[in-house]
Amino acid sequence: MRTRAAVALEAGKPLEIMEVNLEGPRAGEVLVEIKATGLCHTDEFTRSGDDPEGIFPAILGHEGAGVVIEVGDGVTSLEPGDHVIPLYTPECRECEYCLNPKTNLCQSIRSTQGQGLLPDGSTRFSMLDGTPIHHYMGCSTFANHTVVPEIALAKVRKDAPFDKICYIGCGVTTGIGAVINTAKVEIGSRAIVFGLGGIGLNVIQGLRMAGADQIVGVDLNDGKATMAKRFGMTDFVNPSKVEGDIVAHLVELTRGGADYTFDATGNVKVMRAALEAAHKGWGESIIIGVAPAGAEISTRPFQLVTGRVWRGTAFGGASGRTDVPKIVDWYMDGKIEIDPMITHKLPLEEINHGFDLMHEGKSIRAVVEF
Amino acid sequence: MRTRAAVALEAGKPLEIMEVNLEGPRAGEVLVEIKATGLCHTDEFTRSGDDPEGIFPAILGHEGAGVVIEVGDGVTSLEPGDHVIPLYTPECRECEYCLNPKTNLCQSIRSTQGQGLLPDGSTRFSMLDGTPIHHYMGCSTFANHTVVPEIALAKVRKDAPFDKICYIGCGVTTGIGAVINTAKVEIGSRAIVFGLGGIGLNVIQGLRMAGADQIVGVDLNDGKATMAKRFGMTDFVNPSKVEGDIVAHLVELTRGGADYTFDATGNVKVMRAALEAAHKGWGESIIIGVAPAGAEISTRPFQLVTGRVWRGTAFGGASGRTDVPKIVDWYMDGKIEIDPMITHKLPLEEINHGFDLMHEGKSIRAVVEF
Repeated sequence: MRTRAAVALEAGKPLEIMEVNLEGPRAGEVLVEIKATGLCHTDEFTRSGDDPEGIFPAILGHEGAGVVIEVGDGVTSLEPGDHVIPLYTPECRECEYCLNPKTNLCQSIRSTQGQGLLPDGSTRFSMLDGTPIHHYMGCSTFANHTVVPEIALAKVRKDAPFDKICYIGCGVTTGIGAVINTAKVEIGSRAIVFGLGGIGLNVIQGLRMAGADQIVGVDLNDGKATMAKRFGMTDFVNPSKVEGDIVAHLVELTRGGADYTFDATGNVKVMRAALEAAHKGWGESIIIGVAPAGAEISTRPFQLVTGRVWRGTAFGGASGRTDVPKIVDWYMDGKIEIDPMITHKLPLEEINHGFDLMHEGKSIRAVVEF
Repeated sequence: MRTRAAVALEAGKPLEIMEVNLEGPRAGEVLVEIKATGLCHTDEFTRSGDDPEGIFPAILGHEGAGVVIEVGDGVTSLEPGDHVIPLYTPECRECEYCLNPKTNLCQSIRSTQGQGLLPDGSTRFSMLDGTPIHHYMGCSTFANHTVVPEIALAKVRKDAPFDKICYIGCGVTTGIGAVINTAKVEIGSRAIVFGLGGIGLNVIQGLRMAGADQIVGVDLNDGKATMAKRFGMTDFVNPSKVEGDIVAHLVELTRGGADYTFDATGNVKVMRAALEAAHKGWGESIIIGVAPAGAEISTRPFQLVTGRVWRGTAFGGASGRTDVPKIVDWYMDGKIEIDPMITHKLPLEEINHGFDLMHEGKSIRAVVEF
């Protein structure tokens, strides 16, 4: 079949909207009609050429929602008509990682996914001239139709709106999951969130849901405070307006340091401040942001010897097929909010404008609807 | 009263054996006759002048065992004749830290202890000319008699030999505690221990007690392997004899990385290797060693985002008054060994020779007996 997609032909170039060929699903694969997809910084990281592992041409996009159109041989957990969210971190429930409750990093199809291929080592997308087009993070949601492995699809309820729950495919789950799966924040905790963008806001609402007593938001842009307060932030700090050391200021504000701190900036200097603003004896700092290639974090080992813990999280520690449907339920039940974070909706033709909005800091999430 | 002590008069100078004045215990304090004391690298760190927080003159030593001679006003948990181990990390059971099960870093007397003083801000030791001599880590076990706060004394059974259990005051508890309190190693785990000195050997016997399946020891000195095997090491690696990357070698040896790794070297480059040799998804690395002043650890944040955890430990995460008597029981019951690690016994007059043995790598632990 043919479908419409935004194709990244080369690093650093705008995406090009075009018709592409799409083969049907092979064994263990599912054809999905994408109804909506968010635009995430990770897509832009690859599009821009900053991602040293970027492969082109490719169809980017990893934050989508849609409907199953057709299933390949052996697919048993999904059928046409099911509503699904593609998962860039799959959940095979059989590998060493899936069977270890300490991690969500299913490795069953990792090597081919990292090469922009489906598990059998080939692509389903191609140019009209036959040139193969690579998949991206196993999802490629910047296409109206895509083929995804069965183990990389979360089945979700049918009454949930695609243009909102697509965001659960990455940002919402990453932020909320960092709080509840990775940090396992307890009721009454004090927390600091560095970076109040699309991830940071979801960390904040995760903290509110977890019953944190104090939720400090840190951002260089005062304009981020209003929305963050809406999601549960109790204190706002703009480091450019603090005299002296930001870490000392945050330690004082949280009465000795925070029980949990979260970096949602990707800046390695901020990651260090986040660690050092954690409470002596028990504070844990969680790295969510993706740092530039080659960047390194550092600190004095004394910070760890005196009880701080340094962790990271990917996809919020969520096992997607199990956890994503629950988060969709939380949204539908009003336990979490998504609507105010979807600041822009665009047709596929305007997807490059969506990246402009991201760069200008005007959007929290821009969503493309098909 | 007067007692005999090895006094550190100035940074970098040998200790001097002399008679000193010792005042009796004030309220909340206890006079202890030290029967034996180990010589630890931390004493040497301060003696040598490398410790930027070192204060002189001082009576060093923090790994002792002895008998209560006299108790000050208000002391209720100890009486003359009790056998005790002084604790450089006290346990008041009342401060915010003692009441938090995530930490053992009692803060109740920390500020005076850091200044070489007892909690009322004064010293009990002085030169015969009246010059005050500072306490060290709240213990000062390089004196035949010392005064210690009640909350910094673990009461232990009377049939345990002082010349062995003094080592539980630091090295044994630090190593075993890192395994059982900080890492909480599970049965069947794979582990790597960097540095097979006095701490590393105790990490190894902690891992054996915790039921680890694989215990890899790493040291540049082949001569360390025999003793480490005796304590439970299953595999020995000398990095100077490995071709190529030591981390890759260790990851292969542990089939994907270790569940737990421990740095007992104090070298920040080794700390990085220890983190990176931990298993993707769930491996935890615990820093035990004390790094030189100003040294920093670093790594790519990707190491944490893909599931590794970086921790530190002090005094093995042990709450001394509660945990040290249990470890003495384990020794007396044969669950752990100490005797082979006490390689040298010296009279107080030869204490400087004990530091020479440490530098020459000839001792695991030298113990001074009074």
